[in-house]
Amino acid sequence: MTGAPRELFDRVRIVLCRPSHPGNIGAVARAMKVMAFDDLVIVGPRRPPKDEEAEARAVGAMDVLERAPVVETLAEAIADCAYVVGFTARDRHVGPPTTDVAEAAGVILERVQEGRVALLFGNERTGLENDELNTCHARVRIPTGETLASLNLAAAVQVACYELHKTFRDAEPTGDDGRVEAPATSAEIDAFLARVWERSAQHRRYNATDKRIAHLKSRFRMLVSRARPTKQELKAAHGVLTWLDFDQVAPGT
Amino acid sequence: MTGAPRELFDRVRIVLCRPSHPGNIGAVARAMKVMAFDDLVIVGPRRPPKDEEAEARAVGAMDVLERAPVVETLAEAIADCAYVVGFTARDRHVGPPTTDVAEAAGVILERVQEGRVALLFGNERTGLENDELNTCHARVRIPTGETLASLNLAAAVQVACYELHKTFRDAEPTGDDGRVEAPATSAEIDAFLARVWERSAQHRRYNATDKRIAHLKSRFRMLVSRARPTKQELKAAHGVLTWLDFDQVAPGT
Repeated sequence: MTGAPRELFDRVRIVLCRPSHPGNIGAVARAMKVMAFDDLVIVGPRRPPKDEEAEARAVGAMDVLERAPVVETLAEAIADCAYVVGFTARDRHVGPPTTDVAEAAGVILERVQEGRVALLFGNERTGLENDELNTCHARVRIPTGETLASLNLAAAVQVACYELHKTFRDAEPTGDDGRVEAPATSAEIDAFLARVWERSAQHRRYNATDKRIAHLKSRFRMLVSRARPTKQELKAAHGVLTWLDFDQVAPGT
Repeated sequence: MTGAPRELFDRVRIVLCRPSHPGNIGAVARAMKVMAFDDLVIVGPRRPPKDEEAEARAVGAMDVLERAPVVETLAEAIADCAYVVGFTARDRHVGPPTTDVAEAAGVILERVQEGRVALLFGNERTGLENDELNTCHARVRIPTGETLASLNLAAAVQVACYELHKTFRDAEPTGDDGRVEAPATSAEIDAFLARVWERSAQHRRYNATDKRIAHLKSRFRMLVSRARPTKQELKAAHGVLTWLDFDQVAPGT
């Protein structure tokens, strides 16, 4: 294979959020492997995801299916990822604009030079939920006709992996020159934010279950995440947090 | 929808040759409709193609599945088509070279201005047979990785329809200016060739079941078909056939 080296293919992870049908999960494994991707993670499946139907449809990609971790939360699935892309069938009112998958493939090729990239796909019927989309740096759409706009889950993964495969295959091989600073991972950003919230909670009285607070946190996470801080920058931000003596700030301000 | 007019989408036909699994046929119907194509023809299915599993996987595209004719032969399926494309996972030793689907989509957009275009997909396990490929003007491949090169049937149709949809959507709308002469259809070419063979049989003693004769006929059909004669040209060829007085030719020459 010419183009991007094998290790860049290995940095692409497909994340299925709350899938309902094991058959689709098997078909996803095959759709990935046929395009030379093999890192699959399954988040909160509705049914045990590796049943007979999944195996029947994984033809030739049983290894991808068998190796795929099943985790409880999206945060676990993307903890080591530096760039997260959400696939959605429709434009949402909030958040970053939605781009077409062919265009997004070029961006993903750039990001994958720096770290692991996750592509999120939602439940077959309901798609990605807002809080799942809010963890994404970019939203991607597969162009469709107007009368039916909902692709089957495995079909959507197939088109996404196909576009990525083409883009990676046609890429100029990159050297080590001009390598950029490594971006912080999703888990590192979460750890930083957890520290911010913890400190805040010590000084401001608020009800942690308040929906407005949850919304604020979610928006702030989006902001930090979209800025794509490097590991060095996040270390600096931790420094600032330590330096700011929160105890000096009057409660309630 | 911008780009190519609706009628050009309507001129694209998906032809499934000898499919084994009704579930795949339902999934194909959905894969097509989501990309705004709806002309499906099923040739010699191994099982009744419109069963419960087909319906379950046709989600939202039951109309495409229900309307799809089931025919006995490929010739019936492509009788009114002027350009035929065969999808194949591997390069063959004979016939025209294989191009990638993204490149082929541009050619199909040109051909569809002139007449109906059929995209042939073979059996899930065995692909298109040689005689099916020999009826094609072009062979198309979906690029894949190296360890697993076999896409699921519906996944292959999804990628093909996606590439076509993108190409059609981005096309400049075409006017009536510069419209070219209509190409002969597959059925018209067959009728012409049948007349050639019938005349030949009157004058040359040969065993119609002879494999070499069948091979010769098949290669000659490829040649005529690849030349893409217009209706006018085929009419002229019929004229030549009538004008040539075969009775004057000595038997055996």
